[in-house]
Amino acid sequence: MFIKKEVFEKIKEKETPFYIYDLNLLERTIQNLKEVLPENYKVHYALKANVDRQVLGLLSEAGFGADCVSGGEIKRAIETGFEKSNIVFAGVGKTDNEIKYALESGIACFNVESEEELIVINAIAEKNNIVAEVAIRVNPGIDAHTHAHITTGLVDNKFGIPEPHIESFIKSTKALKNIRLVGIHFHIGSQILDLEVFTGLAEKASSIYKKVTELGVTIKHVNLGGGLGVDYENPDQNPIACFAEYFDKIKSVLEIPRAVEIHFELGRSLVAQSGSLLTKVLYIKKSVNKEFVIVDAGMTELIRPALYGSVHKIENISSSLAENTIYTVVGPICESSDTFAHDTKLSITKRGDYIVIRSAGAYGEVMSSNYNLRPKNDPLYI
Amino acid sequence: MFIKKEVFEKIKEKETPFYIYDLNLLERTIQNLKEVLPENYKVHYALKANVDRQVLGLLSEAGFGADCVSGGEIKRAIETGFEKSNIVFAGVGKTDNEIKYALESGIACFNVESEEELIVINAIAEKNNIVAEVAIRVNPGIDAHTHAHITTGLVDNKFGIPEPHIESFIKSTKALKNIRLVGIHFHIGSQILDLEVFTGLAEKASSIYKKVTELGVTIKHVNLGGGLGVDYENPDQNPIACFAEYFDKIKSVLEIPRAVEIHFELGRSLVAQSGSLLTKVLYIKKSVNKEFVIVDAGMTELIRPALYGSVHKIENISSSLAENTIYTVVGPICESSDTFAHDTKLSITKRGDYIVIRSAGAYGEVMSSNYNLRPKNDPLYI
Repeated sequence: MFIKKEVFEKIKEKETPFYIYDLNLLERTIQNLKEVLPENYKVHYALKANVDRQVLGLLSEAGFGADCVSGGEIKRAIETGFEKSNIVFAGVGKTDNEIKYALESGIACFNVESEEELIVINAIAEKNNIVAEVAIRVNPGIDAHTHAHITTGLVDNKFGIPEPHIESFIKSTKALKNIRLVGIHFHIGSQILDLEVFTGLAEKASSIYKKVTELGVTIKHVNLGGGLGVDYENPDQNPIACFAEYFDKIKSVLEIPRAVEIHFELGRSLVAQSGSLLTKVLYIKKSVNKEFVIVDAGMTELIRPALYGSVHKIENISSSLAENTIYTVVGPICESSDTFAHDTKLSITKRGDYIVIRSAGAYGEVMSSNYNLRPKNDPLYI
Repeated sequence: MFIKKEVFEKIKEKETPFYIYDLNLLERTIQNLKEVLPENYKVHYALKANVDRQVLGLLSEAGFGADCVSGGEIKRAIETGFEKSNIVFAGVGKTDNEIKYALESGIACFNVESEEELIVINAIAEKNNIVAEVAIRVNPGIDAHTHAHITTGLVDNKFGIPEPHIESFIKSTKALKNIRLVGIHFHIGSQILDLEVFTGLAEKASSIYKKVTELGVTIKHVNLGGGLGVDYENPDQNPIACFAEYFDKIKSVLEIPRAVEIHFELGRSLVAQSGSLLTKVLYIKKSVNKEFVIVDAGMTELIRPALYGSVHKIENISSSLAENTIYTVVGPICESSDTFAHDTKLSITKRGDYIVIRSAGAYGEVMSSNYNLRPKNDPLYI
């Protein structure tokens, strides 16, 4: 990672660890996405990846919608400039209070995960004298070839309506006066790098669109979810996700009329590469078989390695010595899972050096905790 | 779990999800521990398990010391009544600011994890004109037969000084004017149910004590760490950990003079069973092969199942119907790891029922996050 001298000065002034957000890279990523976005395709940024207000400000300015999974996220989206009519509310566990708040806020659509939820939304909408527009989330039974924790499109997942239940669900929507079914929603997982998976999804979505319209429903949008992965190993070579190929792949097989909007909920692919976790080296510790770099960031700041076995590129930005030493990079938390990298190559590293853990803009700061009563430091924007 | 009528009334008044702390059970646990604690044995409560102020108040009142792993925990321990002279500071990644704060606070001892750390503590102590008392944390190379994430005594872990390096470490302590080596510290892991593991540790500790004293060091205390497990499957049958057997096992093999204090850092075994996570059922969702109970708590409140594959006993406290239905209990977070139990038996469950997730007093609330911008609700004390 190239760090300008003036940025380095700012880094030295701050209490570590902290996140660095490269807003310039984020702007370029947004620009790139907008340039390749087909005409009837629309992006709702998935807030769950990163809810930093400056990050959200750039994404709302770009005209994207917001994909929210809680009342708190809807509130944050509104506060950071997303149009209410561009906000959708997804998730398997919407509470009554959240549904009420979403209805009163005038958001665009609820992605509904079960008939039980449909009935609750209808009842609350009726009380508020509103007709709620909903999309049916269909569980397409597609294996996303990603980490088990983040696969969401398998039949035995908690997500979506299984295909055999679609007809019954549609019947329910017709019977409920304060519900209008306008969309179909899919989401099969996260950090998907095999684009063929999306081809399979697009085919499935086309056939389900056909089935749903044949049941007499007028569909305004089909939401193909998110899931596009980023290159965690080579963030400098691939700082921007392969949006063009992604849309091309989908476009090449999707059979849905152009009047229907195709929605995407991209999160990680928009923000991951713009974020890094900056941490300082506390100790170099030689054990019997290993040499540990103990840094002042831990799983409290970035839980992905402990939770998903994720690998992030790690760089010593203080040292210009050759990358010729094998280190295990660990945090200060008292468990073995608090490890950022096992046996990784780094420049020769010493106490006080600054280390960046790359591609940490998505599912980084949002999942942080105060475990061990550790404080959270404000990010640095560059 | 038996819930009194007046407690149920309080539950209904509160926004869910929230933690319930049974302070009465905690008091009985403390009492039981004190009754079986051998004369020269001393307990330092490991704050990392739970830092609730009321919980800490009872533990400090009981006269226990505090085992802290951050400056924040030391501060909290002092605020909740622990004697400064009974506070120890452990952890592989102590920052300079934390060391300075600990020295200025007048805590009892630093459990030191490397020679590099020793040098830093000495330098800061010298600046403050203090002699810091330290314990050497030895990595005994013992397999705790517990989850890989929480095993800490293996040679390739980041923790402790490997046995072959003890002599060199002691030499360093003698050369440093502001360091006084007074203790030996071990910690091999957490949630250990096989008591034979502790027998092995006690044998190892005895031989290392002998080695260290033969090198001319006067040892005031030997700290055998924590790690005693609790019964997650049967919290009602075994609400209090087997403290008597634990100490008996250790006593039966430990060969250390009675003038030396034997320290223990118990966390989980003191607080786990006194805590439960209370959550409300949002939806019952029938999928193709499974029936899901979707509750309003998630991995944001209790990450142990997602992070360690932990199993907690789950009960429906609203329903008196027989336990005859198989459910998968999941939270609202958009990932498959957000599951509290796969195919578990519960009373027939409906929307609005209250569910308790038992034995959540340790590594529950402390590891919670605001992921998805979810709020944290205050606990209920009963």
